[in-house]
Amino acid sequence: MTNHGNMYGPAFTFLGIPACDLDVPATYKGADVIIVGAPIDSGTSHRSGAKFGPQAIRGGDYLPHDGQRPHLALRTDGLKDLKVFDAGDLLMPGGDLVKSLVVLREATEKISRAGAIAVVLGGDHSIASADVAGIANHLGRGKVSMVHFDAHADTGEDQWGALVGHGTPMRNLINDGYVRGDRFLQLGLRGYWPDNATLEWMRDQGMRSYEMTEIHHRGLKAVLDESFATLTDGCDGVFLSVDIDVVDPGMAPGTGTPEPGGMTSRELLEAVRRICLELPVVGIDVVEVAPAFDSADITAILANRVVLEALSAIAKRRSGSAYNPTQNLLDR
Amino acid sequence: MTNHGNMYGPAFTFLGIPACDLDVPATYKGADVIIVGAPIDSGTSHRSGAKFGPQAIRGGDYLPHDGQRPHLALRTDGLKDLKVFDAGDLLMPGGDLVKSLVVLREATEKISRAGAIAVVLGGDHSIASADVAGIANHLGRGKVSMVHFDAHADTGEDQWGALVGHGTPMRNLINDGYVRGDRFLQLGLRGYWPDNATLEWMRDQGMRSYEMTEIHHRGLKAVLDESFATLTDGCDGVFLSVDIDVVDPGMAPGTGTPEPGGMTSRELLEAVRRICLELPVVGIDVVEVAPAFDSADITAILANRVVLEALSAIAKRRSGSAYNPTQNLLDR
Amino acid sequence: MTNHGNMYGPAFTFLGIPACDLDVPATYKGADVIIVGAPIDSGTSHRSGAKFGPQAIRGGDYLPHDGQRPHLALRTDGLKDLKVFDAGDLLMPGGDLVKSLVVLREATEKISRAGAIAVVLGGDHSIASADVAGIANHLGRGKVSMVHFDAHADTGEDQWGALVGHGTPMRNLINDGYVRGDRFLQLGLRGYWPDNATLEWMRDQGMRSYEMTEIHHRGLKAVLDESFATLTDGCDGVFLSVDIDVVDPGMAPGTGTPEPGGMTSRELLEAVRRICLELPVVGIDVVEVAPAFDSADITAILANRVVLEALSAIAKRRSGSAYNPTQNLLDR
Amino acid sequence: MTNHGNMYGPAFTFLGIPACDLDVPATYKGADVIIVGAPIDSGTSHRSGAKFGPQAIRGGDYLPHDGQRPHLALRTDGLKDLKVFDAGDLLMPGGDLVKSLVVLREATEKISRAGAIAVVLGGDHSIASADVAGIANHLGRGKVSMVHFDAHADTGEDQWGALVGHGTPMRNLINDGYVRGDRFLQLGLRGYWPDNATLEWMRDQGMRSYEMTEIHHRGLKAVLDESFATLTDGCDGVFLSVDIDVVDPGMAPGTGTPEPGGMTSRELLEAVRRICLELPVVGIDVVEVAPAFDSADITAILANRVVLEALSAIAKRRSGSAYNPTQNLLDR
Amino acid sequence: MTNHGNMYGPAFTFLGIPACDLDVPATYKGADVIIVGAPIDSGTSHRSGAKFGPQAIRGGDYLPHDGQRPHLALRTDGLKDLKVFDAGDLLMPGGDLVKSLVVLREATEKISRAGAIAVVLGGDHSIASADVAGIANHLGRGKVSMVHFDAHADTGEDQWGALVGHGTPMRNLINDGYVRGDRFLQLGLRGYWPDNATLEWMRDQGMRSYEMTEIHHRGLKAVLDESFATLTDGCDGVFLSVDIDVVDPGMAPGTGTPEPGGMTSRELLEAVRRICLELPVVGIDVVEVAPAFDSADITAILANRVVLEALSAIAKRRSGSAYNPTQNLLDR
Amino acid sequence: MTNHGNMYGPAFTFLGIPACDLDVPATYKGADVIIVGAPIDSGTSHRSGAKFGPQAIRGGDYLPHDGQRPHLALRTDGLKDLKVFDAGDLLMPGGDLVKSLVVLREATEKISRAGAIAVVLGGDHSIASADVAGIANHLGRGKVSMVHFDAHADTGEDQWGALVGHGTPMRNLINDGYVRGDRFLQLGLRGYWPDNATLEWMRDQGMRSYEMTEIHHRGLKAVLDESFATLTDGCDGVFLSVDIDVVDPGMAPGTGTPEPGGMTSRELLEAVRRICLELPVVGIDVVEVAPAFDSADITAILANRVVLEALSAIAKRRSGSAYNPTQNLLDR
Repeated sequence: MTNHGNMYGPAFTFLGIPACDLDVPATYKGADVIIVGAPIDSGTSHRSGAKFGPQAIRGGDYLPHDGQRPHLALRTDGLKDLKVFDAGDLLMPGGDLVKSLVVLREATEKISRAGAIAVVLGGDHSIASADVAGIANHLGRGKVSMVHFDAHADTGEDQWGALVGHGTPMRNLINDGYVRGDRFLQLGLRGYWPDNATLEWMRDQGMRSYEMTEIHHRGLKAVLDESFATLTDGCDGVFLSVDIDVVDPGMAPGTGTPEPGGMTSRELLEAVRRICLELPVVGIDVVEVAPAFDSADITAILANRVVLEALSAIAKRRSGSAYNPTQNLLDR
Repeated sequence: MTNHGNMYGPAFTFLGIPACDLDVPATYKGADVIIVGAPIDSGTSHRSGAKFGPQAIRGGDYLPHDGQRPHLALRTDGLKDLKVFDAGDLLMPGGDLVKSLVVLREATEKISRAGAIAVVLGGDHSIASADVAGIANHLGRGKVSMVHFDAHADTGEDQWGALVGHGTPMRNLINDGYVRGDRFLQLGLRGYWPDNATLEWMRDQGMRSYEMTEIHHRGLKAVLDESFATLTDGCDGVFLSVDIDVVDPGMAPGTGTPEPGGMTSRELLEAVRRICLELPVVGIDVVEVAPAFDSADITAILANRVVLEALSAIAKRRSGSAYNPTQNLLDR
Repeated sequence: MTNHGNMYGPAFTFLGIPACDLDVPATYKGADVIIVGAPIDSGTSHRSGAKFGPQAIRGGDYLPHDGQRPHLALRTDGLKDLKVFDAGDLLMPGGDLVKSLVVLREATEKISRAGAIAVVLGGDHSIASADVAGIANHLGRGKVSMVHFDAHADTGEDQWGALVGHGTPMRNLINDGYVRGDRFLQLGLRGYWPDNATLEWMRDQGMRSYEMTEIHHRGLKAVLDESFATLTDGCDGVFLSVDIDVVDPGMAPGTGTPEPGGMTSRELLEAVRRICLELPVVGIDVVEVAPAFDSADITAILANRVVLEALSAIAKRRSGSAYNPTQNLLDR
Repeated sequence: MTNHGNMYGPAFTFLGIPACDLDVPATYKGADVIIVGAPIDSGTSHRSGAKFGPQAIRGGDYLPHDGQRPHLALRTDGLKDLKVFDAGDLLMPGGDLVKSLVVLREATEKISRAGAIAVVLGGDHSIASADVAGIANHLGRGKVSMVHFDAHADTGEDQWGALVGHGTPMRNLINDGYVRGDRFLQLGLRGYWPDNATLEWMRDQGMRSYEMTEIHHRGLKAVLDESFATLTDGCDGVFLSVDIDVVDPGMAPGTGTPEPGGMTSRELLEAVRRICLELPVVGIDVVEVAPAFDSADITAILANRVVLEALSAIAKRRSGSAYNPTQNLLDR
Repeated sequence: MTNHGNMYGPAFTFLGIPACDLDVPATYKGADVIIVGAPIDSGTSHRSGAKFGPQAIRGGDYLPHDGQRPHLALRTDGLKDLKVFDAGDLLMPGGDLVKSLVVLREATEKISRAGAIAVVLGGDHSIASADVAGIANHLGRGKVSMVHFDAHADTGEDQWGALVGHGTPMRNLINDGYVRGDRFLQLGLRGYWPDNATLEWMRDQGMRSYEMTEIHHRGLKAVLDESFATLTDGCDGVFLSVDIDVVDPGMAPGTGTPEPGGMTSRELLEAVRRICLELPVVGIDVVEVAPAFDSADITAILANRVVLEALSAIAKRRSGSAYNPTQNLLDR
Repeated sequence: MTNHGNMYGPAFTFLGIPACDLDVPATYKGADVIIVGAPIDSGTSHRSGAKFGPQAIRGGDYLPHDGQRPHLALRTDGLKDLKVFDAGDLLMPGGDLVKSLVVLREATEKISRAGAIAVVLGGDHSIASADVAGIANHLGRGKVSMVHFDAHADTGEDQWGALVGHGTPMRNLINDGYVRGDRFLQLGLRGYWPDNATLEWMRDQGMRSYEMTEIHHRGLKAVLDESFATLTDGCDGVFLSVDIDVVDPGMAPGTGTPEPGGMTSRELLEAVRRICLELPVVGIDVVEVAPAFDSADITAILANRVVLEALSAIAKRRSGSAYNPTQNLLDR
């Protein structure tokens, strides 16, 4: 009865890469990366719409969907130099969020056990509590560190009385032991949430959380420089969680809880590139793209580029070749 | 922690009428009508966004929100001639649809026991399985008949495997005995759903379901004429459920599952007026208004007018004065 | 300092017709029709934006702006068979509405004295109190009858305490003696305004006001049939005032105070054609087009067609040739 | 280098039906219907954007893309009861319109020779000059009659000096002998184009062209009744060409040259159903859907329904079972 | 007849803070801050729509409207640590701008005399000539200095011949002696207005006006550093006037006269924070938010944050506690 | 039959400057600058719509269209200090791109021979292959150097098999000898196109192409500093080609192939100013503005400002007066 390729729309893969079926291991044998959609938005506390994020991110591009994307600056092709498959969208109805998150956790665990990096297209941020957990189930609890881009800390104790929701996943991950609080990096926080009690809880966990004003005054480079060493101390892999609302709403309006004063698109893309060049990324999610509030698809296209930038950098890292951002494009 | 007046935004009442608190009976003593919001959309099978329906419907007007609305044609004021309160929005988070629907069912039962007509602002249509049930719990199972405007029959057996959802409420109401299948009138069906097995189930229940082509060829008046007598045969009250997608998407684009070829706004408003003038309405819901897809608020304003038209006609019916639609406005 | 061709944007004429300057009679010598813009919206009680109506109506077309428009059905060219000029936009700043309306009144009086039909592109409906007055100043007070399409009667006693505004022009015109109340036809009223006291005042003036339900039940043709004779009884000319909100918001969303349940575009166009074929029209205004709320310019294009339909029919009436709407296009 | 499934975006089939490759006959063996996209808009005289029509029409639905659509009223499934394939989009770059139209003409000829009905998703209306020609190349010049829904006659002599364009296809088809002028039915014309010389040319060809005013006064049923017999007189098949702008822009804003005063969505769907039930349709195109100007996808969804309505009716016609539109849905 | 809470829509307070009535001093006894709406846009020279600014700014948030907002970085709550009330919208019809501005001037004078900071939500910028004047009437003419963020100098001599308008308020304030020209700081100017004569007048008044290129080359910090000392030299308080168009239209599209090349949202928020931390702010207005041109409410949310950032910083300043922007959030 | 002033809409000039007719030299005698529109978009590989760019750029402003624009910072008036004319739009139908490009090439050659700077409003970027060629035909092949702002290199070998298109103009210009590869500066490249073979071709030509990451790390100033000397080495003039998609889609959404991570509007405007102050500009095009995807006209207004900034700086350069960007506006 359902469309297994894409829960809420036509079935097509990320920019034309080959499809796979998570229930049939032969279809993703030897995969480096498996992309999967988590089309759910009932965890959001405000504007819904992120369940169409996977569809918008997959299609957010103006070039032919031919399964290749040579990266201009890095001179790698994240879709060809790596073996990448698209497993379609998981069946995650919104009416029972807890049950749907189990489906996702089992999927990323399966992907991780297959030796592949899971790239999860959200959906609201409640999915992080499941997709990271699935990977940690394979790699070991506490063995995965987090790099988390977001306007919001997502460390709430509950949401409307429920434990799951897009305001609580990071607390759940720490409370459940999947991720250590002192291996948790947050970038881009701002605004008027959470309250002091939650901030104290965060401090007690040893989290490292940078709000935009500190980044504004110290620079994003300095902030990343002081954080990277910690992330690989005692952890085997890094999970990169990108809430698109880390970018200023002026550049990424298509999201549910927009908070002004964020990063530029360029800053996010540069940071994602550096993280994937320098750290052993084992999983990625890109969340909170809500196409109904987008303008000319710019938010969806940005999220598409976050995925491509990450895959291109991972391919570059695996190639072992050098990269100097100030060297001219045509001199490489 | 929550805003009890309006779950997802600023708190204000329907066009400025007095607020009440369902937990404090003194605040709605003597009420003829109580409006309540059901801001949930996790029951939808496609585009979410209807959880902002209550806010959009309450505010969908260009006149001062002064708690009065003299009806030009009927010469009654549905907000002043009746005693109408707004109970705000219920706390209905989307992540647990079943639990949230219980909250709504209890609310409409409370309103009905207080002797008032419940007017529920949706939300997706899954709420009908709860708001009608609440009233039937008070008036008696099988004692409430249904008039249901919709592009879709909403009689699915399940939705993504779940019993609740916006595709199943009418089957649930009949299966659970709240409403008799042979006291169930459906108007405006069209399109490519449900399948034959479901249509046969509907026939077996004795439902009376009119698709648009029959209405197009026979006229809406003829269709209503042949149905009204049945609705009050053995039933004490009529519940009016208006899915705004019964109107053509050209005139009501702000909805989640738009099906072309529907009624005009005028046809719907005329039919609602007649139903409330001629039948003993005990409850109303107006559902599936999704503001994110609206154009210049026209769908929200239409839904606002469905409520006003209904209340104006109920006031007229209670006044006992005559009404002739072909008599000139200034000759009344 | 100002742009005399178009107050709020680039200067261009209605579909490319010749420009004229109201201060230089030689530029519009022998004119049958003079189009003029009244770009003001400070008389509106809700959404502003109608001051860009003139610009949107002039440009609302997809054919080359070549100053000609052969009418498919009538076989006339309203822009070529008549001598039509565009006088650009009047300088009507919004901060002093009373003063700006004087500018407009003087302009239409000048046009009328030049023997031309004034076609005024609004602007909010407050302008009707001035543009009709200007014509009546020339033809004689009480000598001009009105045909008024609108969702609203616009007969309010005041607006926020002021006499001028888009809710009061029709009362002002009658109170000031420009138009006789018993030569005043209103079509398309609906909704929840004005109150009973105002309706009684309207009845006392002998106005003939048809709300949509009466039109729905009796038909627009019947309603027009019974009204036309009166309009030319003792009056020398008819002023046609078209508030675009007479059309259903589904078909004309680009307006400030949309009221659901209106006419279709087709009904309005057919009625305008018939009025201009059968009655001695001396002035026209088309008001309340607010482009900021429009969708793909459909409201602006509709208003453009109201003007073209009127001019085409006036040209047909002046040609004296017969017209039968049921005769086939290619058999004419 | 190109994406053969969909020229300008992700590749997916119409509502999930099987794909085929026009170059590989085995992939569409036994086909009843083959859908193909013609993504080109350089023939348009105004707003471009129709090249994304095929993508929007294929995806314009809220139900799972599962390759089936049971028709509520007709009790057939146009996608299952017929053998339907989607051949993807043809490679039709806009810079050389003449060359791209040859590609389309060869495609529909191939489909027709395979014994299938071609359903072409446009694209601007210039494609009709090619898709009809391809079928006539197989069935015989003059052996295909036309039913053409449109606001515009599309019989211009040239466009900006070129023979091809969306204003000229019908003249080209007649001039080139593909279709006889006296087997050419046009429905829905209105507005201010073409000029008298062209209308006289149309009359001289024996065309039967109905403008909206005649339809308004006589009724669509009467107009169809008097036309059907002619269409099958000496012709073996009927081509149905639906320019979506035949519908009022209020209900179908997503198009390039919107002309107010059109049909309702319901009228178009009813007419398409009747035509496909009563006439031997051999080809269909649905054109001028320009998603950039759409509102909440309503125009794309309407075009999707035109295709589904046609296929459902063709399946019904082939089944030989009776259909009475006034019989109740549940009594069938 | 009017809605005293919100002139043009539903009545609700800024993020749920308590309401007060300016006519009843007891309702705002002990207030630190009083928010009031100035819903007028007839002073604009181009796109109207700013009269809905107050409604959009009050509701521009995704968190529950519960009257509290703990500031993540400053660790204060601008709504709880200060005593803040919302006085609703003033009755300021657009047709008589001069008269409406008097209403506003009297309101801010009343607020200032009550010892509270007035926060005025505009409305177009013409309101600055009144809201600053009201405060200066209490604190003394020439005793209030100005910090003015804007793309435009707003020092025009007249506008369409009138003294009031959104292009003239700053000249009026100086000419009328409310503010000294040499205590007037302007930030963010750019574009093609005003002319040289006006620039010379500005220089003659001793104004300090920074255009974006100077800020771009020297840095916003340097520019603020050299200005702050002057502002408190001989003045008792600072008025902060924020025209939202100081931000680049890419990040704040919802405004009437957008000028490309502006500040980022982040720059504005950082500057507002610093000003309210370091200077004795006595009044604030946030103007020119025109929701009809906004995209996903991002401009309204930004304006909401300007207010919150200011109130949070004022609370921090009053608390006397230290603040170091480079100290980590969780180390405070 | 066509409108010679503006191919696809009403005819008006750039901000009200005088019109001229390229066929009548007397109408542009002594011109310093001639603006001309190239309304074509059939060269685009994705979203069409740029053919309405000329209309949107001409009208993209909120000040009166009075033919003057005093530049706040430079104290020149690019429209008055230079003699500027607007030649309207060229007749360039999209169906035959090759033929239409010839029309454009002849136009810029004519403008160049008249001693004026051609400012071409696109249109998609395929026009650059023609407008630069026209100027080089006059000044000499290889005598014009290029400064090219773009997200894309536009050096593709072909597009869908055709030589012309918006992906190939820069290769055509070099291949045809109009511009030397080693006098070709590209700024703002990013994303996933073109492939390595093309990059190698670019290197072989001696092109200097800066992608955004290099600009991000080194600064735009450093990049310009190292390039300017080369551009005038052996060349007599510089052509400035600005593809608006060089700016981040967040700030310039109204374009066909948006690539995230671009320049800010401010960076582009500052760079254009400097180029026109320091280099001998002989031609300009501003391309790829597609209004259908714009938000509140911000992209069109930005493009309008690119033209104004360029003309203001050219006027300043010709005046010979000094300019220091860090000197205060009021101290000049």
